[in-house]
Amino acid sequence: MAAGLQVFGQPASTDVARVLTCLFEKNLEFELVRIDTFKREHKLPEFIKLRDPTGQVTFKHGDKTLVDSRAICRYLCTQFPEDGNRGIYGTGSLERASIEQWLQAESQSFDAPSSELVFHLAFAPQLNMIPDEARIAENERKLQQMLGVYDEILAKNQYLAGDEFTLADLSHLPASHYIAGSQRGRKLFTSKKHVARWYDAISSRPSWKQVVKMQHEHPGTFE
Amino acid sequence: MAAGLQVFGQPASTDVARVLTCLFEKNLEFELVRIDTFKREHKLPEFIKLRDPTGQVTFKHGDKTLVDSRAICRYLCTQFPEDGNRGIYGTGSLERASIEQWLQAESQSFDAPSSELVFHLAFAPQLNMIPDEARIAENERKLQQMLGVYDEILAKNQYLAGDEFTLADLSHLPASHYIAGSQRGRKLFTSKKHVARWYDAISSRPSWKQVVKMQHEHPGTFE
Repeated sequence: MAAGLQVFGQPASTDVARVLTCLFEKNLEFELVRIDTFKREHKLPEFIKLRDPTGQVTFKHGDKTLVDSRAICRYLCTQFPEDGNRGIYGTGSLERASIEQWLQAESQSFDAPSSELVFHLAFAPQLNMIPDEARIAENERKLQQMLGVYDEILAKNQYLAGDEFTLADLSHLPASHYIAGSQRGRKLFTSKKHVARWYDAISSRPSWKQVVKMQHEHPGTFE
Repeated sequence: MAAGLQVFGQPASTDVARVLTCLFEKNLEFELVRIDTFKREHKLPEFIKLRDPTGQVTFKHGDKTLVDSRAICRYLCTQFPEDGNRGIYGTGSLERASIEQWLQAESQSFDAPSSELVFHLAFAPQLNMIPDEARIAENERKLQQMLGVYDEILAKNQYLAGDEFTLADLSHLPASHYIAGSQRGRKLFTSKKHVARWYDAISSRPSWKQVVKMQHEHPGTFE
């Protein structure tokens, strides 16, 4: 029994979304604790919905506290190997090594340019900021290059670490969703045949769809 | 500066909704802390949204903790007399006495039958419970009788305690909204001319509309 799992944060955050997706894949019972701030002079009934993708996540399980979303996903998979999706962190050491390699590639290479694109393509428009063309172009180029490598891998495998959906794929979902949700960013995920097929498959998972639903239902921060 | 106001609970609860409406009327900054429980075997992506109108509210302001929604409203109005809607708890002792009389009538006479109707008309259907006809009829009769008295008062005044919207009116909103939202309950609020005009006016307030929006946006408890 997985009693006592608690997530503190907002579903709009990419890190929180990563953890929630893993919890739904593992079909674990948990509590989501959210704090919304309602500011003065918010000019009822109109208010800005800010969905901040940079918010942090905190995870508690009994006395254990973790704050890194990928570490939380690994923890959930190793603590509850028999729950929900059992293959999501690999069923053998070779498969796990491959998933680990991808998790590191995602956090070390994919995360930085994709986070910048999330900020400039999805978050800045909410704040009425003028998009920084140079930063967008540079990060698009970086991501395009990476996704070129992904496309070669995905020509051979259904998913990044083999023919099953794993944490390797899951970890890419939160940022990719924001980028693919913008008109400009969408083509990064649709222009390459195998990446397009892969992104379509991973973003159709019920676990992820539920997280997207939560991101939209959530009233966010009112200012 | 009204820093440090915190509300713990779900907007679907009538007591939480009462406090939120008062906070919006007073245009105070506050934090809303919500805990959602996501249960195992919730059969993604379909889940039941339970909006439990019976949930409790807890309010904190610094070291002070209050749990009665009407006491919280009084506290907000006396602690922050100059914020937002200044007349909501009366501007003189005579007006305040009249508001107090109505707040007590609401909590002592209106609350019990209306809460039962909320349960049977709005909440029981969510749980696929067979409606208890005898209980519904009895509480409809009680409420109809009370609203007959309200109608006479409202023939003379725009609002219950005079010609301004006050806590007396506000306090009736959360339960009335659930009852008027059901096909069967609606006529209780539309069949009497002055009650109909009054309910239309109070339920159109931006503060209340924002609470209703939060009730609908909120994902509720997943089972």
